[in-house]
Amino acid sequence: MADTDDMRAGEKRVDLAPPADAVLRFIGHIETPFTSRDLCPRQGRIDGPECVLHLAPEWVPALRGIEAYEMVEVLYWLHESRRDLVLQSPKSDGETRGTFALRSPVRPNPIGTAHVRLIRVDGPRVTVRGLDCLNATPLIDLKPDRCAYSPAAPEKPTATG
Amino acid sequence: MADTDDMRAGEKRVDLAPPADAVLRFIGHIETPFTSRDLCPRQGRIDGPECVLHLAPEWVPALRGIEAYEMVEVLYWLHESRRDLVLQSPKSDGETRGTFALRSPVRPNPIGTAHVRLIRVDGPRVTVRGLDCLNATPLIDLKPDRCAYSPAAPEKPTATG
Repeated sequence: MADTDDMRAGEKRVDLAPPADAVLRFIGHIETPFTSRDLCPRQGRIDGPECVLHLAPEWVPALRGIEAYEMVEVLYWLHESRRDLVLQSPKSDGETRGTFALRSPVRPNPIGTAHVRLIRVDGPRVTVRGLDCLNATPLIDLKPDRCAYSPAAPEKPTATG
Repeated sequence: MADTDDMRAGEKRVDLAPPADAVLRFIGHIETPFTSRDLCPRQGRIDGPECVLHLAPEWVPALRGIEAYEMVEVLYWLHESRRDLVLQSPKSDGETRGTFALRSPVRPNPIGTAHVRLIRVDGPRVTVRGLDCLNATPLIDLKPDRCAYSPAAPEKPTATG
């Protein structure tokens, strides 16, 4: 989270007041085989290694019914990322682009999203494949994947435009 | 955000300390035609009405390069949602399920994710189709859709498992 070191050519940061708009409550953590940033793949693969979402006890009842879904969306907090870059020059190609044109972990709000395959649920442990994050990453949310999820009721009327 | 009123049959809440794990910084807000919850569709449609992401001035440079992507992932804060339910009985079918088996806006961390079609970028205004959120919803992040995004460099070696 250093503000000025480790910047590459073309990168640009902004001065920001401390964030104060909304507060997250971690619901657990993620166990992955990726114990350093160098071991993290650039993108998770559905046939990648098994990873385990460890839920805090109070949230275990909230898993009821999730085993019906093959694919789950996972949100997590990229706790090692700085948050003040507007332009970035990824090591991979050195080209400078805006933060919102990249899926870099460096973002104003470093939230990762992944679509993972649900392997099994065992009490507070949810085993999945498809993650690319560091071991011990804080867990924010999980929900049925949009593609797999159909509301049980008929569509509501929609506003037109 | 009331704690005990408006609960349906079968629903269960938990007592929680105030959230304190990470703090978000809103990067703008979202203009949609959905001015009340009853007008929000259950899921956004790629052929739905145009909506506008309004970026705060300091984040406008971070849009550089985003116009290359047809599909963009948007994260937003569901600011009217309570956060303490572990079991929910959606009005649509009355069946009680765990919060993590639903895409309900009621979640421990009420973050919405959407995959939207990018229509145009005009300074701080990013016009998209595919959202289903309330007008004036706080914006958290936008990034190239996973499906459309390919890192420019070769795959890194991955850990096995």
